[in-house]
Amino acid sequence: MTTTSLTSNPLSPTPRTTVTRGRNRAVVDRTALHAALADGLVAHLGVVVGEGAAAHPLVLPTAFAVDVEGPDRDGTLYVHGSVAAGWLRASRDATVCVTVTLLDGLVAGRSAFHHSMNYRSAVVIGSARLVEDPVEKARALARIVDHMLPGRSSTLRESTRKELAATAVLAVPLHEASLKERDGGPVDESEDVDAGVWGGHVPVRLVAGEPVADADARGPVPADVTARAAQLARLP
Amino acid sequence: MTTTSLTSNPLSPTPRTTVTRGRNRAVVDRTALHAALADGLVAHLGVVVGEGAAAHPLVLPTAFAVDVEGPDRDGTLYVHGSVAAGWLRASRDATVCVTVTLLDGLVAGRSAFHHSMNYRSAVVIGSARLVEDPVEKARALARIVDHMLPGRSSTLRESTRKELAATAVLAVPLHEASLKERDGGPVDESEDVDAGVWGGHVPVRLVAGEPVADADARGPVPADVTARAAQLARLP
Repeated sequence: MTTTSLTSNPLSPTPRTTVTRGRNRAVVDRTALHAALADGLVAHLGVVVGEGAAAHPLVLPTAFAVDVEGPDRDGTLYVHGSVAAGWLRASRDATVCVTVTLLDGLVAGRSAFHHSMNYRSAVVIGSARLVEDPVEKARALARIVDHMLPGRSSTLRESTRKELAATAVLAVPLHEASLKERDGGPVDESEDVDAGVWGGHVPVRLVAGEPVADADARGPVPADVTARAAQLARLP
Repeated sequence: MTTTSLTSNPLSPTPRTTVTRGRNRAVVDRTALHAALADGLVAHLGVVVGEGAAAHPLVLPTAFAVDVEGPDRDGTLYVHGSVAAGWLRASRDATVCVTVTLLDGLVAGRSAFHHSMNYRSAVVIGSARLVEDPVEKARALARIVDHMLPGRSSTLRESTRKELAATAVLAVPLHEASLKERDGGPVDESEDVDAGVWGGHVPVRLVAGEPVADADARGPVPADVTARAAQLARLP
């Protein structure tokens, strides 16, 4: 799948992912969706667990990765977990929601009502497929490692059969997706501006400290880890 | 409600919030729960939208605040949104899941299988109540502003009737809650340690840049905004 085909297929193809509030902040651009997913490190996976009247949503944080060359037309989002995890069992072949949010700033309005946050939030809704093909599973797991630490997977031994058997990978098509974002300062009432109340915003971002070798580590910090820490340490 | 009563009531009072995976990482301590909720800026609210076969989870990021003196025995978590938002309508009197996750580090294991993240994640499940009492609603909105920018609400004019009417506040009891956390370096296979592969972790945290005044702002950046930026800028 090429970048062109990704960007030419607009987001929000269904009412489920059409942004209905704050339309000015909805983004209909697959390039922006993929940029937000590339910057996010944690996804929040929502599943419905329980049956009938006892059914309720459960939202858990998870590592994730995107494969634009995955089997789904608009790319595939992967999450993984223990095969024994209840949420993974509840997700299989069910509709799930995967949300990746980046907090970019705190917006100090001139009234409580106009306080806000700057953010990018990608919401993906789709049927979760348990990945059973070993080639797809190995590739998805490598992408999840490389999403966290780019280049790391190629420096590691292959996973053992036991490790692969203990790990479940779920695939969610990136077809039904939306991106909402906000940036800049507050949008205030003119009376509050005229009254001289201060308004502005505080930019925030995730920053890395120095890599910490564990007690058994020998030799220098590898280049992939150093590069990731340096990349996250850059303020915008 | 005193801190003592909070800490004496263990977390995970029901099977729904009992951490079933990675038991070593489950925390049964209300002080730690409240510390994670105090540090988190964004909650992910999970609701079930749609009916019958069309029902599916929806996970959206939202500002939030906690009131340990709220009406619920173990404290109350508040989220807010536009009265017109579909997810707010779907949440009312329904069971929702509110998850607040802080990413603390990237864990570079000596194998793909032992890659992980350091994090704290609070999961709260409960019936969402639409706050209709004007005193509770005003206090909840002030707490949401102050959660983002401590001390800010007392510097602002009161919200107008129109603003309050446009804003819905949902309350979720903090009774049914769990906290899961991980820290430190990887837990690797001894063969991989013996083979000399590097292992360690990269600490990460949310850091603030300098406050940005908007074009109409006059005077110095107020103390509440400066203090928040300074507090977030401290690396651990």
